[in-house]
Amino acid sequence: MSDNQTSASGASTNQGTAPASSMWGGRFAGGPAAIMQRINASIDFDQRLYAQDIRGSKAHCTMLVKQGIITAADGDAILAGLEQVLQEIEGGNFPFRTELEDIHMNVEARLAEIIGEAAGRLHTARSRNDQVATDFRLWVRDALDGMEAALKGLQQALLDRAFEHAGTVMPGFTHLQAAQPVTMGHHLMAYVEMIGRDRGRLADARVRLNESPLGSAALAGTSFPIDRHFTARQLGFDRPMNNSLDGVSDRDFALEFMSASAICAVHLSRLAEELVIWTSAQFRFVKLSDAFTTGSSIMPQKRNPDAAELIRAKTGRVIGDLNALLIVMKGLPLAYSKDMQDDKEPVFECADTMELAIAAMTGMIKDMVVNTDVLAAAAGAGFTTATDIADWCVRELKMPFRRAHHVAGSLVKLAEDKGCDLPDLSLDEMRTVEPGITEAARAVLSVESSVASRISHGGTAPDNVRAAVAAARAKWL
Amino acid sequence: MSDNQTSASGASTNQGTAPASSMWGGRFAGGPAAIMQRINASIDFDQRLYAQDIRGSKAHCTMLVKQGIITAADGDAILAGLEQVLQEIEGGNFPFRTELEDIHMNVEARLAEIIGEAAGRLHTARSRNDQVATDFRLWVRDALDGMEAALKGLQQALLDRAFEHAGTVMPGFTHLQAAQPVTMGHHLMAYVEMIGRDRGRLADARVRLNESPLGSAALAGTSFPIDRHFTARQLGFDRPMNNSLDGVSDRDFALEFMSASAICAVHLSRLAEELVIWTSAQFRFVKLSDAFTTGSSIMPQKRNPDAAELIRAKTGRVIGDLNALLIVMKGLPLAYSKDMQDDKEPVFECADTMELAIAAMTGMIKDMVVNTDVLAAAAGAGFTTATDIADWCVRELKMPFRRAHHVAGSLVKLAEDKGCDLPDLSLDEMRTVEPGITEAARAVLSVESSVASRISHGGTAPDNVRAAVAAARAKWL
Amino acid sequence: MSDNQTSASGASTNQGTAPASSMWGGRFAGGPAAIMQRINASIDFDQRLYAQDIRGSKAHCTMLVKQGIITAADGDAILAGLEQVLQEIEGGNFPFRTELEDIHMNVEARLAEIIGEAAGRLHTARSRNDQVATDFRLWVRDALDGMEAALKGLQQALLDRAFEHAGTVMPGFTHLQAAQPVTMGHHLMAYVEMIGRDRGRLADARVRLNESPLGSAALAGTSFPIDRHFTARQLGFDRPMNNSLDGVSDRDFALEFMSASAICAVHLSRLAEELVIWTSAQFRFVKLSDAFTTGSSIMPQKRNPDAAELIRAKTGRVIGDLNALLIVMKGLPLAYSKDMQDDKEPVFECADTMELAIAAMTGMIKDMVVNTDVLAAAAGAGFTTATDIADWCVRELKMPFRRAHHVAGSLVKLAEDKGCDLPDLSLDEMRTVEPGITEAARAVLSVESSVASRISHGGTAPDNVRAAVAAARAKWL
Amino acid sequence: MSDNQTSASGASTNQGTAPASSMWGGRFAGGPAAIMQRINASIDFDQRLYAQDIRGSKAHCTMLVKQGIITAADGDAILAGLEQVLQEIEGGNFPFRTELEDIHMNVEARLAEIIGEAAGRLHTARSRNDQVATDFRLWVRDALDGMEAALKGLQQALLDRAFEHAGTVMPGFTHLQAAQPVTMGHHLMAYVEMIGRDRGRLADARVRLNESPLGSAALAGTSFPIDRHFTARQLGFDRPMNNSLDGVSDRDFALEFMSASAICAVHLSRLAEELVIWTSAQFRFVKLSDAFTTGSSIMPQKRNPDAAELIRAKTGRVIGDLNALLIVMKGLPLAYSKDMQDDKEPVFECADTMELAIAAMTGMIKDMVVNTDVLAAAAGAGFTTATDIADWCVRELKMPFRRAHHVAGSLVKLAEDKGCDLPDLSLDEMRTVEPGITEAARAVLSVESSVASRISHGGTAPDNVRAAVAAARAKWL
Repeated sequence: MSDNQTSASGASTNQGTAPASSMWGGRFAGGPAAIMQRINASIDFDQRLYAQDIRGSKAHCTMLVKQGIITAADGDAILAGLEQVLQEIEGGNFPFRTELEDIHMNVEARLAEIIGEAAGRLHTARSRNDQVATDFRLWVRDALDGMEAALKGLQQALLDRAFEHAGTVMPGFTHLQAAQPVTMGHHLMAYVEMIGRDRGRLADARVRLNESPLGSAALAGTSFPIDRHFTARQLGFDRPMNNSLDGVSDRDFALEFMSASAICAVHLSRLAEELVIWTSAQFRFVKLSDAFTTGSSIMPQKRNPDAAELIRAKTGRVIGDLNALLIVMKGLPLAYSKDMQDDKEPVFECADTMELAIAAMTGMIKDMVVNTDVLAAAAGAGFTTATDIADWCVRELKMPFRRAHHVAGSLVKLAEDKGCDLPDLSLDEMRTVEPGITEAARAVLSVESSVASRISHGGTAPDNVRAAVAAARAKWL
Repeated sequence: MSDNQTSASGASTNQGTAPASSMWGGRFAGGPAAIMQRINASIDFDQRLYAQDIRGSKAHCTMLVKQGIITAADGDAILAGLEQVLQEIEGGNFPFRTELEDIHMNVEARLAEIIGEAAGRLHTARSRNDQVATDFRLWVRDALDGMEAALKGLQQALLDRAFEHAGTVMPGFTHLQAAQPVTMGHHLMAYVEMIGRDRGRLADARVRLNESPLGSAALAGTSFPIDRHFTARQLGFDRPMNNSLDGVSDRDFALEFMSASAICAVHLSRLAEELVIWTSAQFRFVKLSDAFTTGSSIMPQKRNPDAAELIRAKTGRVIGDLNALLIVMKGLPLAYSKDMQDDKEPVFECADTMELAIAAMTGMIKDMVVNTDVLAAAAGAGFTTATDIADWCVRELKMPFRRAHHVAGSLVKLAEDKGCDLPDLSLDEMRTVEPGITEAARAVLSVESSVASRISHGGTAPDNVRAAVAAARAKWL
Repeated sequence: MSDNQTSASGASTNQGTAPASSMWGGRFAGGPAAIMQRINASIDFDQRLYAQDIRGSKAHCTMLVKQGIITAADGDAILAGLEQVLQEIEGGNFPFRTELEDIHMNVEARLAEIIGEAAGRLHTARSRNDQVATDFRLWVRDALDGMEAALKGLQQALLDRAFEHAGTVMPGFTHLQAAQPVTMGHHLMAYVEMIGRDRGRLADARVRLNESPLGSAALAGTSFPIDRHFTARQLGFDRPMNNSLDGVSDRDFALEFMSASAICAVHLSRLAEELVIWTSAQFRFVKLSDAFTTGSSIMPQKRNPDAAELIRAKTGRVIGDLNALLIVMKGLPLAYSKDMQDDKEPVFECADTMELAIAAMTGMIKDMVVNTDVLAAAAGAGFTTATDIADWCVRELKMPFRRAHHVAGSLVKLAEDKGCDLPDLSLDEMRTVEPGITEAARAVLSVESSVASRISHGGTAPDNVRAAVAAARAKWL
Repeated sequence: MSDNQTSASGASTNQGTAPASSMWGGRFAGGPAAIMQRINASIDFDQRLYAQDIRGSKAHCTMLVKQGIITAADGDAILAGLEQVLQEIEGGNFPFRTELEDIHMNVEARLAEIIGEAAGRLHTARSRNDQVATDFRLWVRDALDGMEAALKGLQQALLDRAFEHAGTVMPGFTHLQAAQPVTMGHHLMAYVEMIGRDRGRLADARVRLNESPLGSAALAGTSFPIDRHFTARQLGFDRPMNNSLDGVSDRDFALEFMSASAICAVHLSRLAEELVIWTSAQFRFVKLSDAFTTGSSIMPQKRNPDAAELIRAKTGRVIGDLNALLIVMKGLPLAYSKDMQDDKEPVFECADTMELAIAAMTGMIKDMVVNTDVLAAAAGAGFTTATDIADWCVRELKMPFRRAHHVAGSLVKLAEDKGCDLPDLSLDEMRTVEPGITEAARAVLSVESSVASRISHGGTAPDNVRAAVAAARAKWL
């Protein structure tokens, strides 16, 4: 909302359109005034900024007194009045008025009722443009902090389960086809890494966000001797922003929050997809708790992974929110255009959605039961240790990699023809394919020895996984 | 929501995460149950489907009686009970209960309170899967109809102003640079064409939407002798859908509604951008009414085009909504996945946004004052009739087009050097460039004769515009 | 490209930026001229419009002669010259020149080389603005037609396999959990319905697209006595567009093509996801042919569903393309802005992507082997006929639906406790739950009788499916 | 591309679909093999990774020798062979073969031709999965670096012009309406801030990207005694990635690069929009050079801002690219799915687009002529110093802000009624509104004194701007 606006209230030459249907247009029977109030007023959603708005006003007021711009008496009255407004809102007995359009005017109007004319001094050297930029930045900063903490909780849940299942073998998939055995702990640790990068993006976004637009005034700065460094400090900002036009026209912090959220939502959707597939009757890799599934009154054994599906779906909403604001901001000339009022709802929806999705994922991970027997059986099916025998040939027989792969392929073919698994082939049978094979080679064919052998940095060996958990705990928790 | 679900209620081994911050996580102190209820329950938003839900249930009940599947007595009790539920909801005294999760269970549970066990017969040969598909289709159909009517209203407003300004000259722009004179009526009629296509898309979408999923049951159809053609007719559908799996898994109708909305939103954004530019102090082509602008307490002459800016911004929201559902639906196996519960909020937001944007645009067009003097002056500035003299040379002197353009360019250069407009050049001066030029050529140089000459089909000549308005009225209103 | 432009060639005061890295900037060592040519010239991609450009020019030329605007001799020369240009391009020996910027100027310049000054008369009463609008519309129309035919081929493949598997039972899923038995034929027919709607959207888009912008000239129409109805007919358009500003500024046809493509891509992604899941070792529902999978040199039994995965991925590209053009068009004032040159690449990519995805899906469906035994076993697992016994209780014992579900749930519990399937329960055992159960009730418990009983319109009964295939063949092929 | 794949080559039971139209399907007359090659092969686009692929292979080879996994002789042969392949590709005489599918196999196959069997040892302890992840990361890192340097160049151009115009007054806009005077230097410095944040995002993304996936092998790590820290260092990575599954399945670095690009593209679009508006005949704030505009053969004075419009349009492409990959990655189970092959084209397009847009914007900023007279006149029109007199009343007369605004509004009204500007009011006239006004008050009414007074941190005062330029030079250049 641009500063110094009066409410839209003027006369119009046109009457309200007759409602198109009972659903449409009915709200606008009041004509232009009703339409304008509906499209222009933001109080329905920006009241969520109340705490930030009051916090910002208090800091501004304190600074005005300190700089001698308003008197201490006026300052005291304003601070007390603002505190009362805060109490009223948090107590649920603040009368929000749509005709006052936004949270800023609602708060200021109530302040004037409480303390009288001194309220009119609060807005000195300030504009609604820098005020809303400050409020919204503070809100997004809180959202960043909340999301960061929630992701830490999810990492903790993943780490606990990864440690527990550091040695639990399972198939490692490519193309949803078993490729090589890995451990469940290793698999979960991949998500710890992803979430770690998500936290990193949030932390970086916070640093860029954490400059104060307060004092940019309408767009040009002000001639009052304000102290922007002081208000910045009061509000926990690292410093004031360097350019007043940028101060009121920038929404990068919101875009960056939503970009980071979108990438995080993609991570959650990948794990959610795995949970949906893993809980199918065909896979049965894990069992989700009753808390995060829904059942059927008629098929009591059924356990629908509703929470996982909803987390997967939320990716769409978060990407949609990011798109919405990118598109809103495209091509806007400086400094403030009313288009920018459409910044808040996407950000609120994004934050609410992420909060919910992370909480649900954390709960599911904590609760899920891992079917180790099913995983072990699946880990060995499909000749998943074929690369182990190939690697053995390379290592011990000094074969070129491409030829060793040919040998392994022939062994798989032999086992397939015999209808058995690779470890079931006898040494003699194996030697029909490659005479150099020894008993030592057969030892690499079990799933357990396969995973145990992957000790390269970042490899799936159980000891590696336990070490990775320890390192990640130290780094992330 | 999948059919036959019981509420998520089971125990969980994990306790509620401690709130990450006062804002985040606090709602989930209740642990998994609170998280699951929050992510799983849809009643907060799907209560908007109440009228459609009850209408669908009534049609289903009537059919069950007609087919002898339930008794007339039970049917009467159900119909009366549903009517009472409807009254309670519309009267504002219906107790929505989150633990019942969705609108369907809220209605059915209340029905059972009112009429007892007979309520349990309503769901015979039906599932929540086909029920919600039916409800949502009915809602979107209403939205399509409402939007169609609203767009008709916008066309009417445009047509009225186009007729009024059929002869009002203005610059026709390319690259925001004046290129050739056109009329304001002609310019507005371009939007009548766009909105006409928008209405066409909605009408086509409606035809595809207008098939009934009711009777698809959970996903496989039913063994009860239901009459799907009857319920389809009762609900105003053209016919039942042909495949029960498709019936419960299709959301094309919502995607198509949002696609059409996104294209329409782009149209509105173009006109909105023009209004923002046209009302700048530098352009002053039109003046918006007080009703759709906001002023400034300190600069009383200022008139910010807030409504136009907000309409422009809404493009982002609508495209974001379309994206959200496209992404949700990507890669979902048949038939029903809980992901699909995330279909409603984007559609509701899209419909609400379009309703508001169209109403605001209609109001602005009706009210705006066209500054004909400013437009006339701008129409002639910049040698905008240069192509007219070129065309005259082609027509009368039989020059090839490319050479005629060279002549016109030289005349413009001459005028520019003299610091005058093209019509200010004397015949002698013009003949220094091209001896064949006659007094008749000079007649084509005025803005008025330029626009009057563009009588090709769809051209900007005032008579054309008036005829186009008449034709459009006959076609669209 | 706006009409009458001269190439950007002016001097600049700045020198080329030193290359930022070997990869970046190196191309721009030539300074502003190199940058401008690169950003401004479209010949690299718009040469794909050559056939449409020449076709449009021929129609325009023929009309100019017919209307007496140019002479027959000039017209003949132009037509012959254009034909020669066409031959040169199709023969691969046309020298495209970047400095001529776009396809229109490349063709016209070559025409002038071939026929001399008469070439300069072709552009009479035309502008690059309506020329490119015409070319692009013709191209998109061809793409619509090609895609429509390709989708028909996909429907044919689906119908053939659906008929073949009308009686092949498989689990019907909700939440990727077996819910009720269906048939593979029924499942495939759901996609026939989706693709049918896709074809409907394309057909509707084609009707809206099929109006001719030719004759809109730069933006205002023309004073030449052109016959737009004639050129429209010559080019297969239904009629000329009604407004010249709309004629040059409209890109709805491209947006609508991409919207329809995006929804179709979502359909393909759903089937692709099913193929990926169905071909996993855990599901083994179908086997794809070697042609559409890749294997492994080391695991010869491995069959990666690459084509299905790539089809699934293409959804992202197509939605991205749709977004790109929606965003480009947002907020563009009339009539032509250079932004609109960015319309072609997204459309070309969208069309190419859809062509490939549909062809690959059609091939996979034709080739895939359905593992009927695996499907049959899965269809019966998980007590999927529990609703059948519940429905029997409602139908025969007149129980309310909700109570009947309780009975069925108890029977499932009994079977689960005994470790057997529902059909394995004896009549006596079943009567311990509900004494009214008779031998007839047991008959509904088999998968075969379950699917056979779903004879409601659109239900999964094999006879229904065969009838649906016949009806769809009549409707769609 | 998954490791160890053989080319798709198997027989198919279906014949090539007859071409739907000359345009569609014709390419696929060869049937399934042609379709599969087309959808599966990536060599058409991934050949851009050749330098990174060879660099990665060299590092891997050197490490294999160091660790004793292959012999020094084999290593030397491989390194020499790879160097020869590199020369061939850069020399333009490397025969790329589609049947080899991707850049990796093209390089390796050629290596085998050159050095024979030793080539088969290069792939020891490596997989195409970690190979392509490494190649692509290196490519994106180069793109980040190139973009970072290009943005620095843009900042430099902005800083130079900002310093030059530190004192050039112009209107500061809200809602495209003049609100308060600012300076052109201040306005340009807002973009320096935005671009600075863009550079910050790229730098942060680079840190997260800069870990080596090489050694993740197919997905599980390897049993060979590789040294991942060594290869990481060789390739300029800070360290190896910690989890092999994450190593091959992560594409965050590409998403983050495109997110940062999308936000940057929004910034460029805002400045581009301003340039389009500013160069309109109505604004005439700046004049772009011939190099970045196109003219008209017929209207020589016309100067279309094509480059600015195209930059504005590119926002759509970049956002579309970001969307494409976010959607591709949504819901992909670990580790590698073929969907991920669709990661490169969006990234390449995004990088190419940003490179071009930044270069064009830099050129325009360097070249543009600022019309200081026009700006000065516009700066003072519209009573833009009304807030200055209000602030004076607050400061000197100790009025509450809200009352002071009322006084200023009355003065504006008075000037408006008299048809003069604020500075034209006499002291007596002003005192009729507020008797406390003195001659000192009148001094604040000029545009020059207004901007000079805005000395708050980040305010628009010319001295502030000069200081800000100096500080920004120190920080960013």
